Amino acid sequence: MSIGIGLIGTGWIGEQHVHRLADKVAGAQVVAVADIDPESAGKVAASVGARVIDTAERLIADPEVEAVVVTSWGPAHAEQVLACIAAGKPVFCEKPLITEIADGLRILKAEQAAGRRLVQVGFMRRYDAGYRQMKRVLDAGEIGEPLMAHCVHRNPNVREAYTTEMAAKDTAVHEVDAMRWLLGEEFTSVQTILPRKTAKRFPHLQDPQIFLFETASGARVDVEAFVNCQYGYDIQCEIVGEEGAVRLPDPAAPAVRKAAKASVEVLQEFGDRFADAFDVELQEWVDRLLGGQEPSGPSSWDGFAATVVVDAAVRSLHSGEIVPIELPERPEFYA
Amino acid sequence: MSIGIGLIGTGWIGEQHVHRLADKVAGAQVVAVADIDPESAGKVAASVGARVIDTAERLIADPEVEAVVVTSWGPAHAEQVLACIAAGKPVFCEKPLITEIADGLRILKAEQAAGRRLVQVGFMRRYDAGYRQMKRVLDAGEIGEPLMAHCVHRNPNVREAYTTEMAAKDTAVHEVDAMRWLLGEEFTSVQTILPRKTAKRFPHLQDPQIFLFETASGARVDVEAFVNCQYGYDIQCEIVGEEGAVRLPDPAAPAVRKAAKASVEVLQEFGDRFADAFDVELQEWVDRLLGGQEPSGPSSWDGFAATVVVDAAVRSLHSGEIVPIELPERPEFYA
Amino acid sequence: MSIGIGLIGTGWIGEQHVHRLADKVAGAQVVAVADIDPESAGKVAASVGARVIDTAERLIADPEVEAVVVTSWGPAHAEQVLACIAAGKPVFCEKPLITEIADGLRILKAEQAAGRRLVQVGFMRRYDAGYRQMKRVLDAGEIGEPLMAHCVHRNPNVREAYTTEMAAKDTAVHEVDAMRWLLGEEFTSVQTILPRKTAKRFPHLQDPQIFLFETASGARVDVEAFVNCQYGYDIQCEIVGEEGAVRLPDPAAPAVRKAAKASVEVLQEFGDRFADAFDVELQEWVDRLLGGQEPSGPSSWDGFAATVVVDAAVRSLHSGEIVPIELPERPEFYA
Amino acid sequence: MSIGIGLIGTGWIGEQHVHRLADKVAGAQVVAVADIDPESAGKVAASVGARVIDTAERLIADPEVEAVVVTSWGPAHAEQVLACIAAGKPVFCEKPLITEIADGLRILKAEQAAGRRLVQVGFMRRYDAGYRQMKRVLDAGEIGEPLMAHCVHRNPNVREAYTTEMAAKDTAVHEVDAMRWLLGEEFTSVQTILPRKTAKRFPHLQDPQIFLFETASGARVDVEAFVNCQYGYDIQCEIVGEEGAVRLPDPAAPAVRKAAKASVEVLQEFGDRFADAFDVELQEWVDRLLGGQEPSGPSSWDGFAATVVVDAAVRSLHSGEIVPIELPERPEFYA
Repeated sequence: MSIGIGLIGTGWIGEQHVHRLADKVAGAQVVAVADIDPESAGKVAASVGARVIDTAERLIADPEVEAVVVTSWGPAHAEQVLACIAAGKPVFCEKPLITEIADGLRILKAEQAAGRRLVQVGFMRRYDAGYRQMKRVLDAGEIGEPLMAHCVHRNPNVREAYTTEMAAKDTAVHEVDAMRWLLGEEFTSVQTILPRKTAKRFPHLQDPQIFLFETASGARVDVEAFVNCQYGYDIQCEIVGEEGAVRLPDPAAPAVRKAAKASVEVLQEFGDRFADAFDVELQEWVDRLLGGQEPSGPSSWDGFAATVVVDAAVRSLHSGEIVPIELPERPEFYA
Repeated sequence: MSIGIGLIGTGWIGEQHVHRLADKVAGAQVVAVADIDPESAGKVAASVGARVIDTAERLIADPEVEAVVVTSWGPAHAEQVLACIAAGKPVFCEKPLITEIADGLRILKAEQAAGRRLVQVGFMRRYDAGYRQMKRVLDAGEIGEPLMAHCVHRNPNVREAYTTEMAAKDTAVHEVDAMRWLLGEEFTSVQTILPRKTAKRFPHLQDPQIFLFETASGARVDVEAFVNCQYGYDIQCEIVGEEGAVRLPDPAAPAVRKAAKASVEVLQEFGDRFADAFDVELQEWVDRLLGGQEPSGPSSWDGFAATVVVDAAVRSLHSGEIVPIELPERPEFYA
Repeated sequence: MSIGIGLIGTGWIGEQHVHRLADKVAGAQVVAVADIDPESAGKVAASVGARVIDTAERLIADPEVEAVVVTSWGPAHAEQVLACIAAGKPVFCEKPLITEIADGLRILKAEQAAGRRLVQVGFMRRYDAGYRQMKRVLDAGEIGEPLMAHCVHRNPNVREAYTTEMAAKDTAVHEVDAMRWLLGEEFTSVQTILPRKTAKRFPHLQDPQIFLFETASGARVDVEAFVNCQYGYDIQCEIVGEEGAVRLPDPAAPAVRKAAKASVEVLQEFGDRFADAFDVELQEWVDRLLGGQEPSGPSSWDGFAATVVVDAAVRSLHSGEIVPIELPERPEFYA
Repeated sequence: MSIGIGLIGTGWIGEQHVHRLADKVAGAQVVAVADIDPESAGKVAASVGARVIDTAERLIADPEVEAVVVTSWGPAHAEQVLACIAAGKPVFCEKPLITEIADGLRILKAEQAAGRRLVQVGFMRRYDAGYRQMKRVLDAGEIGEPLMAHCVHRNPNVREAYTTEMAAKDTAVHEVDAMRWLLGEEFTSVQTILPRKTAKRFPHLQDPQIFLFETASGARVDVEAFVNCQYGYDIQCEIVGEEGAVRLPDPAAPAVRKAAKASVEVLQEFGDRFADAFDVELQEWVDRLLGGQEPSGPSSWDGFAATVVVDAAVRSLHSGEIVPIELPERPEFYA
């Protein structure tokens, strides 16, 4: 038994997902791909024996396509997701779900009107083994009520096109979702702090940045985003509760003792760091669909809330002020 | 595209593999199962929509069965593997491949006569991420020529049916295979050492035991097998070379600071410790078959050699002497 | 050869220092003690064969007293230190050097007038092996220019007399000194952030608190002070530079694997955590004096600057605003 | 109050101890030194203001010398220790106490005749914080009855004069003492195992070696001695009991993340690894003497037993056989 999947957008992550679905995910069959670049679409389609469909609209409408994966560029996501909802087809949308708040409201409304959850957003950290273990520790009450979280998100470097705003929108957004999920509450304010800039990268870029969030319960979450740290892709997280603290493990790696050092390798690519998380994410999505169930992963609401939060962080970046995060009340539908 | 698999033996590991193949391995379809207990076979078959076939022989012969997984009890493995070879069907056989040396010689002969590798043996550690990272470190020459390996294999406890001989045959056999693979050479002698027995378990059982192996190059491998260590399932390994040392990582787990301790959980089950390894093992086996390739995992030779080694360890257990390991020359076929 | 030391204030830390000087520090002899409580002074004096002198003034003036250790209560420090300077005697003063900024200016002026460094302030972390190793890493340029520091200061709990202002004045002041020393620059602003309070302790107390400092170069230092964390006395610190990051080690402790956990003990007392640092601090102070050298440890300037910084943190606590830190220019004398 | 110490033998360790006693140990005063090389004695004496005495005998007899430290070359130890016993003066003797078994018996007899413990042997590991923590864990019963110990003793390299026999006599002897102390029982047999030799060092030397000891209770202790491991001075130890296991901590060191590695430094010198242990060892010895107590450290019996054990290890090295360790019954005096 397998489900026919159509994928829109055959860029880097799209191609990764196509091969993941074809080679690693049980019960998935990529039946069609679409891309604004027909050559890219053709190459990727050929590699897994799928058809090329010339537009996203036609792909969504195609009868063989039972579920859709959206990996196009961000600004196109909202319309494609809305088209999937209109077609009544489950859609897995890479982050960001939306680039405009108004689009988020339309998606929330449409999905509620459809009467069932059709949308899952690609926040893969919820599927990382380490984060899941932290979640179990928290949910078991082992560290008591959470009071603070300290997060670090470092990349070895970024390409020149990376802008100062992307530290919130592309980078810290992962911590925003992970912390909302782990803490089980919404963020209410944000302050963006600008440390001394690294001289190791493009002058246009303010890097690193620190985001200081407050949550509805008053817990504080700080996130260091440092995307030209040189040494590796490094994700750290400690949550401090009333009775204890829990820390995200580093990836397991053999310790080598040599030349006066005991060392472990630090990964360089987020794709390596979260390879298993991506696999599990899509496998669980497919498993839910095959089981006739609604998706259980990050929802439209989560995608919407994350964008509201990072938009506020960008406003704080520009104003230097603490910026309140104004989120409408969460609909019961997304409880 | 998928391959039709028949599985023989629906005990614990068989049932695990059926669900692994059905739910996690892309490109595999369990089409048939057989077991000496028809009820067990029926239940497992029903859970994945496979047929029950009443005997191993008929299952192997079934035209829908393109490849076979053998998870029956150990003494039955050799005949079932030989039947697969005779039928020209690829077979994945759980360890042990053989319980009698003579059977191993028959399998090696039959497979060579068949002219291509048909057999893979279920030494799953070669698919564990940590061991694979160690292998890369060794093969890159990072620690120079290996001189010693220190291994630890601990279980929290074993059932009463576990016998003193099983420390070599069922427990240390995993280290035997892993070290043969990591070091790339054969073992030439073994000495079994009997420390003071733990009082925490059955009086009939000599536990722990230490196995001291020598390899063809003179490297020394010591393996502590302690199957009632109480605290957890714990696999440790350090390889020491002329220029450095490398250590198998513990599984990644979040550190919790609480009540005057900083602690990480120690797993209790080998099935949890090597869950990913089992998945990768079967996925890679299926991928090779789908790609029309011979299996690349542990071969008949590896299964045969491991049994020769642990048989010698058992002789040393009884004699108290250093026992030479007499292995015929490895056929070119298995180079 | 040994130096005669008089100690003022035989409370907890005073008694500790008396025994440290008597039993562990080579070249020191405690010749006299004074305390406002004659009984306490008498008991401590008797334990090491020292004389009791009835007032601090007379102790400082006593001809046998070649150097003074001030461990009286904080508000008395400034006058006692000034008296030592007036007497031309080296003085080791426990933190805080001052409780009023004006006193600091008087001490700086008096010491400069004396023409040589007479004062050392008891910021013992500069003598902790881990911090010293970090300092070597930083000074060797291994991580490049520092951009951020993340500090954590946790106590298992505090007594009821501990006030909200003490989080800055008594607790984070240690990080203030350690970071000024490690980074080699002054702090220029501070923001005190008040997370959700722990319910595990006195309602009057805002605990935890986060202090966010900026330095002259624009580096950012965040300090979590959480003095009722329940689980232990836990000091963490990571400094992030342009090319790498360095982290303060936890105290070495044997890992115990037992009952499904691998755990190390977390210390409960700052006295245990920094026992060696206290010893080294006083030994090096005595060694300098015996060698006829000025003290090389934290200076009057360091004691003054730390108080200016934590005073600003308290103002931020009350105002909720970012508070600039206005420090006069550092005299050449303290370069 | 201080004790006048005379030191015999101003080689490397002697000079270290002189400065340790002069600069770091409270209550000790080096009053005299002797060495067969008068120039060496003169230089060391001058550095701490001690007298040179021309022979060991005269130094021991000198009325200012209240206690003796023996750091001469090994074969001279026994006579000098015997002379101290005859003079009724406490003596701290660096290892080895003896190089001939017969000398050990004479020392044991003489000390018992003297009626009180006068001799302490310089096995400094008993004063290392990590080993002491392990001892507390063991003595508290946390891991239950010990069944096995796995020890590793690695040096980066040794000079050409180091012989194959020294792996037991000079290197593994530290583990012999540490394990006798930790386990609280004697060793009963030893087997020396010769792995493939490293090619990184002198051809005359069999390096590494593994020593496999049995204790009176049947526990097994394996010791890897690898003195040209290239990468550092590395001491590891795990003790495995019926209910858990405990591992000696590595020295605390800051982790540096840089250039795709997270690394900590590995020390290169045993003098650095055990610097604190040496300090504590002499401080506690001096404290006992100042307190009018017999020494509490490793006794003549411990020094004797260690030599008996490593002599047997050397015999096993030559014979290739398991060699029984024949130790007379321990006199009550040393209980």
